[in-house]
Amino acid sequence: MARASSLSGFPEWLPDGRVVEQHVLDSLRRTFELHGFAGIETRAVEPLSQLLRKGETSKEVYLLRRLQEDVDEETDPDKQLGLHFDLTVPFARWVLEHAGQLAFPFKRYQIQKVWRGERPQDGRFREFTQADIDVVGADTLPFHFEVELPLVMAEALAALPIPPVRISVNNRKVAQGFYEAIGLEDVESALRVIDKLDKIGPEGVARSLMDEAGATPDQAGLALELASISGTDASVADQVLALGARSELLETGLQELVTLVEAAHERSPGTVVADLKIARGLDYYTGSVYETTLVGHENLGSICSGGRYDSLASDGRRTFPGVGLSIGVSRLLARVLGDGLAGATRAVPTAVLVAVTDEEHRRTSDRVAQALRARGIPADVAPAAAKFGKQIRYADRRGIPFVWFPGEEGDEVKDIRSGEQVPADAGAWEPPAEDRWPRVVTGEGAGAR
Amino acid sequence: MARASSLSGFPEWLPDGRVVEQHVLDSLRRTFELHGFAGIETRAVEPLSQLLRKGETSKEVYLLRRLQEDVDEETDPDKQLGLHFDLTVPFARWVLEHAGQLAFPFKRYQIQKVWRGERPQDGRFREFTQADIDVVGADTLPFHFEVELPLVMAEALAALPIPPVRISVNNRKVAQGFYEAIGLEDVESALRVIDKLDKIGPEGVARSLMDEAGATPDQAGLALELASISGTDASVADQVLALGARSELLETGLQELVTLVEAAHERSPGTVVADLKIARGLDYYTGSVYETTLVGHENLGSICSGGRYDSLASDGRRTFPGVGLSIGVSRLLARVLGDGLAGATRAVPTAVLVAVTDEEHRRTSDRVAQALRARGIPADVAPAAAKFGKQIRYADRRGIPFVWFPGEEGDEVKDIRSGEQVPADAGAWEPPAEDRWPRVVTGEGAGAR
Repeated sequence: MARASSLSGFPEWLPDGRVVEQHVLDSLRRTFELHGFAGIETRAVEPLSQLLRKGETSKEVYLLRRLQEDVDEETDPDKQLGLHFDLTVPFARWVLEHAGQLAFPFKRYQIQKVWRGERPQDGRFREFTQADIDVVGADTLPFHFEVELPLVMAEALAALPIPPVRISVNNRKVAQGFYEAIGLEDVESALRVIDKLDKIGPEGVARSLMDEAGATPDQAGLALELASISGTDASVADQVLALGARSELLETGLQELVTLVEAAHERSPGTVVADLKIARGLDYYTGSVYETTLVGHENLGSICSGGRYDSLASDGRRTFPGVGLSIGVSRLLARVLGDGLAGATRAVPTAVLVAVTDEEHRRTSDRVAQALRARGIPADVAPAAAKFGKQIRYADRRGIPFVWFPGEEGDEVKDIRSGEQVPADAGAWEPPAEDRWPRVVTGEGAGAR
Repeated sequence: MARASSLSGFPEWLPDGRVVEQHVLDSLRRTFELHGFAGIETRAVEPLSQLLRKGETSKEVYLLRRLQEDVDEETDPDKQLGLHFDLTVPFARWVLEHAGQLAFPFKRYQIQKVWRGERPQDGRFREFTQADIDVVGADTLPFHFEVELPLVMAEALAALPIPPVRISVNNRKVAQGFYEAIGLEDVESALRVIDKLDKIGPEGVARSLMDEAGATPDQAGLALELASISGTDASVADQVLALGARSELLETGLQELVTLVEAAHERSPGTVVADLKIARGLDYYTGSVYETTLVGHENLGSICSGGRYDSLASDGRRTFPGVGLSIGVSRLLARVLGDGLAGATRAVPTAVLVAVTDEEHRRTSDRVAQALRARGIPADVAPAAAKFGKQIRYADRRGIPFVWFPGEEGDEVKDIRSGEQVPADAGAWEPPAEDRWPRVVTGEGAGAR
């Protein structure tokens, strides 16, 4: 059992689960850095006034007060502090603060915990880790970043010990251009309704489009036809245009969408799919929008979402457009560990346990361990000079593959899995590469250790 | 300027500072793992009842409440949540919760942010990162871990881009055994007074020992003589014994202290010093106690402290003794970055910027970058097909050492520092090892980029 939690919504992992988590975080960082994203961290707290800019999530914010502070002391929302609930709001604040010291376009990744006071449920935590990438420009940001960023995420996710992913994409300009062209003017209401397609079905959506977005039956029918379109190439645009609507915005949107799926098809075939029913986030994103599901685990919901903002931040003088995506690392990991999709070969870093012959010779064993560590081999020394059988069991219980026996006539090392014991020199012996550090393995029963 | 902070007490680093911080965290992790410590993380919050077990710090705790929650809703200290102020209290709770799934002695490292609602001042933050190592036993824990753990920290600190450190050690048994032997019975008051030696001087201490700890003038004089003793070998014990006091506890303590400094002298000469005036923490530590200063930066205070607890945790049935130390990473880093003791060779991971000839050929540049990344070379593509001079300036502003020019007749790569430009193949070219990733360099002006 890699998972452990004594407080609902605040997941903690046992050491073997943490090995998997650390591997995931290291792997994400490496992909992001290979693509030139600089790592930053922001403080965990923001003034409440910053956090409330996205009004809809206000109910989820955790506020802070000092234990010795009068409860009502701090009611000024510029001074009252809360824990950040995502990494976008703090990044926008950070960009504005440091715009003068940054070179734009600026690419950053950020991997941190965030907090939301939501009711905990499967895959929804009160404390969880997000891994974000964003590129932000000063005043302008070329469209090609809307192609690049989901492909970076596709590559990052493909390197993880998880099932394949599907990135569904849409474009605000397509939806807005289409609705406007067919005379459906309340675009935001229409998008909100379309977002419920999976939940309330096409008939429910048609009714709601008429009731809530002022659509005629014809407009509702066209909106539903648009939402039914998906594909991985230029045929998506053809299907949309076959519905008869035309506008400059729609055509720009279709061109962007086709450019994205075609580039994705070249770099990462089968991963990125245009899906015109994606509507979540289209109220604040202004171009491409992305959602990602784990194939075979669609019930988990999106594990990596994002899009383009024409104004990620603005200081009144300059506007900073951005494109970004965010991985819900904890949600992903809870599934991976909970379902045993991946596990660690051992829970401790140690590759070699150096046995202790008697307490007077502990220093000899310490020296062996130091010689191994100096060559990058994780080593530990037995805690007590017990019988060798007990020292071997100590290693076995922890999954440590090798036990080292210092000897006056020369040292020996035993692979406790095979029982093979051979003479060895602490200044030269090497473990097999796959045994040096704990590894993460995938597949059936991977988490069964 | 690597440091940036818009909210007092909540430090944030610009990307070049974060490169140094990440290097420090990676280096600590590597040393800890080479020594067999397993990494864990605990949630950021604990029930207030847990946090208040260490009564003295209660004033520093940040409490949480949800924005939509009635202010007085949660007054039960078992349900009221607060942010952890160190990593020892959560680790003790975690050990009790998972004792059945752990193998003892259990060695863990933990690197996380902690929060204290203190008045911010130089080197004292409200949010900061700690890096802890602890070993915890079930019911027993051999003394040799009290030797091992400070030596792991000495090794970890020696690998960082910081000035040398001095680890001052003392032993509760020495102080308590000595005071009891000379008839000074209020040991805790005496230790509290001795702790002020640097602040109020020997005369002030003598007076306070008499006023507050019930010492006679003779006892006060002996306590001061004990506090004046320091050294790196067995002579420390001789000096203590020369004061005439004798007890079994004192002799055990002296033996432990001498064993520690002598082992340290072998492994890490000059780093560990017995200093009998160290009294901080002796009220809750029960054996060895450690404090660490940065040579030449003693005014920063201790950057790494800890000691032995005979009862780190207890569930009524079993007791879990522990030994551990904690590095104040943010305090250390604020000094390193603030004084320019270390800096990054560049603020972005990118080693190569691939130029774009015209937007129609962006895909060609993307392919070059992908070929470089596939061989572990961090690469970025120019954001716009501007004049080459402008693309080179883009790289230069970010400290990216190489610009790659795709060409129909074959590619070329330019080292923009020397101006040298040579033919290159994206499937084979290697940057010099020192240019592949940003490095951390130390010494005068290291932070001056």
